[in-house]
Amino acid sequence: MNYPPSVRRLIESLRQLPSIGPRSAERLALHILRADPALAENLAASVSGARRTVRPCECCGFYAEAPRCEICAAADREAGVVCVVEQPADVVNFEKSGAFKGRYHVLGGSLSPLDDIGPEELNIAKLLARVRDEQLREVVIALNTDVKGETTTLYLARELRQLGVKVTRLATGISIGTSLEYADSVTLSHALGGRKEV
Amino acid sequence: MNYPPSVRRLIESLRQLPSIGPRSAERLALHILRADPALAENLAASVSGARRTVRPCECCGFYAEAPRCEICAAADREAGVVCVVEQPADVVNFEKSGAFKGRYHVLGGSLSPLDDIGPEELNIAKLLARVRDEQLREVVIALNTDVKGETTTLYLARELRQLGVKVTRLATGISIGTSLEYADSVTLSHALGGRKEV
Repeated sequence: MNYPPSVRRLIESLRQLPSIGPRSAERLALHILRADPALAENLAASVSGARRTVRPCECCGFYAEAPRCEICAAADREAGVVCVVEQPADVVNFEKSGAFKGRYHVLGGSLSPLDDIGPEELNIAKLLARVRDEQLREVVIALNTDVKGETTTLYLARELRQLGVKVTRLATGISIGTSLEYADSVTLSHALGGRKEV
Repeated sequence: MNYPPSVRRLIESLRQLPSIGPRSAERLALHILRADPALAENLAASVSGARRTVRPCECCGFYAEAPRCEICAAADREAGVVCVVEQPADVVNFEKSGAFKGRYHVLGGSLSPLDDIGPEELNIAKLLARVRDEQLREVVIALNTDVKGETTTLYLARELRQLGVKVTRLATGISIGTSLEYADSVTLSHALGGRKEV
């Protein structure tokens, strides 16, 4: 004898989420059953609501509820500069820092031949079109610093330079607030190579 | 600039779940947006479906989709013996062990004067009625071994004995598979007090 079918279905659905194991799924399901019915209704409505309402911005690929996202539609962003990131979450991270005033372009991942992800699988053609259409003067590449991110950065830099646009990338070096003791040797050599006069 | 409103609502709903912090809620939300739309639809349907379909069994308080749960409705359970537990999850745990053949009674918590939880807030009156109506010969009390559980066990034992039914409780002692080195002193003294000849 086990939970009734509808409870088992709920546990199974929750297990599909990342980093939710069988015990967590059970605990979440029991909470949903025990809590105020409004919690379950809100959760159900927001899950299907978000999935139906949100689509990729037709310009940059960030989340949007209209054809264009709020950032592409905003009049007060610096024109001519685009920051290329892998995921929508990276856009929000940059926005939290407040350090970037231009617009973004979300690739949706990075090149990965082993996973059959080539340039066509990423939001790259639209980026190249934007260089011309928006007469961009600078593209800042801000991808992850792992092997796939590096490969993608080099690929993009080559393609973009052919269009005559200035291509830059984020500085690499020691993270702010970390101890040198824990910096890995690759980061250290990057930081040393990029040293500046004080 | 942040995520669109529907994405923020989704993140907020997920944060209401236990042990889901802001970062986990964001990660889960982005997964839901990225994954197959069927995942979101299944999740939404199972959340509101379970909440609407499931109700407490009118007899024992376990989860049911009919007036009575599957266990109370089953003909092959041993009659006359009821195991009293705090939560529905405890029922499933006992069922997994396969060690108990009788039926259950779910209290829905334990006595806790500080939280204003007295006997009326728990599923106790129905338990006392079952002793008479089902002519129970034994009630096994299987509550948590914390202070609230102990208090509730003593309260129930007194009430039940007045009805002339045999009242038992789970044995306390060393958990199977654990090292004596890590057993706490209260458990050790219980285990010693309940020692058996081999």
